[in-house]
Amino acid sequence: MAYELYYWPGIQGRGEFVRLALEEAGAEYVDVARGPGGVAAMQRLMDGAAAAQPPFAPPFLKDGDVLIAQTANILLYLGRRLGLAPREEAARLWAHQLQLTIADVVDEAHDTHHPIASSLYYEDQREEARRRAGDFIANRIPKYLGYFERVLERNPGGERHLVGRRTSYCDLSLFQLVAGLRYAFPRAMARLGPGFPRVGGLADRVAARPRVAAYLRSPRRIAFNEQGIFRRYPELDGGN
Amino acid sequence: MAYELYYWPGIQGRGEFVRLALEEAGAEYVDVARGPGGVAAMQRLMDGAAAAQPPFAPPFLKDGDVLIAQTANILLYLGRRLGLAPREEAARLWAHQLQLTIADVVDEAHDTHHPIASSLYYEDQREEARRRAGDFIANRIPKYLGYFERVLERNPGGERHLVGRRTSYCDLSLFQLVAGLRYAFPRAMARLGPGFPRVGGLADRVAARPRVAAYLRSPRRIAFNEQGIFRRYPELDGGN
Repeated sequence: MAYELYYWPGIQGRGEFVRLALEEAGAEYVDVARGPGGVAAMQRLMDGAAAAQPPFAPPFLKDGDVLIAQTANILLYLGRRLGLAPREEAARLWAHQLQLTIADVVDEAHDTHHPIASSLYYEDQREEARRRAGDFIANRIPKYLGYFERVLERNPGGERHLVGRRTSYCDLSLFQLVAGLRYAFPRAMARLGPGFPRVGGLADRVAARPRVAAYLRSPRRIAFNEQGIFRRYPELDGGN
Repeated sequence: MAYELYYWPGIQGRGEFVRLALEEAGAEYVDVARGPGGVAAMQRLMDGAAAAQPPFAPPFLKDGDVLIAQTANILLYLGRRLGLAPREEAARLWAHQLQLTIADVVDEAHDTHHPIASSLYYEDQREEARRRAGDFIANRIPKYLGYFERVLERNPGGERHLVGRRTSYCDLSLFQLVAGLRYAFPRAMARLGPGFPRVGGLADRVAARPRVAAYLRSPRRIAFNEQGIFRRYPELDGGN
């Protein structure tokens, strides 16, 4: 039976980390909220009094009777099933730990344009966004990318992967993070990127994997835009 | 062999969620960074070129050869070992999902006093903090506590626990969240709290559990203070 993915249509958002895993694995899935009546179906699963285990927010995944939310948790669930994570417990938790750290920087990337409240427009927090983005570029991007660079460098399985000797969902997610940062902060990343060659190399290799490359060219890949997590607002891209 | 917990001394912070699990289970553990030379030892584990799996940040846990970071991931690891999580996969992931949602609101609570940058003093982002805290109280606390209230209400195992019929690490963490919110936002929580009676009831019951109560009275429990995640700044407590 096909997996059912529920996520806001129109943006890559956090759903994209799940999509990339499903696509790389060639798994059968339905992107429910992008179909007719899909957003209403998604809302029903969140609000429905029937659900004993309601998700707090999208994305969530339905696999038969199992309903599972929180991006990193979904990937923990899918990892073994899709062959995108190690089987042994310590390695599995290590992959999950890396994914949670990617989730942290994704949250921070979101907050560069919404430092005050998700419920307000960007325009109503533009000044605060400028300050927060400045710190994100100066301190947080280098700290996080430096960390992943170090993880790649030290991976006993070789510096082409974050975990072990094979592509895991962490590699796919790091690609997505780098793609998002390059989109949102092109000037800053042009300056900072070369300092993290292993991270950049991994992102480029993931993008070139046959199934990922086919997906990125397909209409299933929503383009980056200014409603998602990674937004290109030139005034937030440093140097101003 | 005793577990080794590594976390900043002087604050409860994210380490507290792990401490509560260890304390409730009566597990043997060493709070390494609170002992002599402990912070240096913690730093060595993060920076040491030897570590193939370096943590990005505290807290992390050492269990023999296993070094594991990210609060929710540590609890995922400890949950089964300490008897504080269900064994069956779907229930285990459900507990983890709730923990990740608690982690999300904890992050947001932190950002009420640091909406611009962790690297800046509170005093340098006080105005922004006032705006962000206003939204947190008006929108986010009710949304999150309303969610946990609903989860308790719908739990097939009964509304005294988040998951199943027994105390899990999620219950302990929800207690800590509520305790933190009550500390940081006493006026707002006096107003909002009664709207979430199941959540408040759970927090009070957890605080009264013999081992938790003994821990809370002990010197091992660091008091809330204005260096931690939950800070009492009256100007952020609504109504101003």
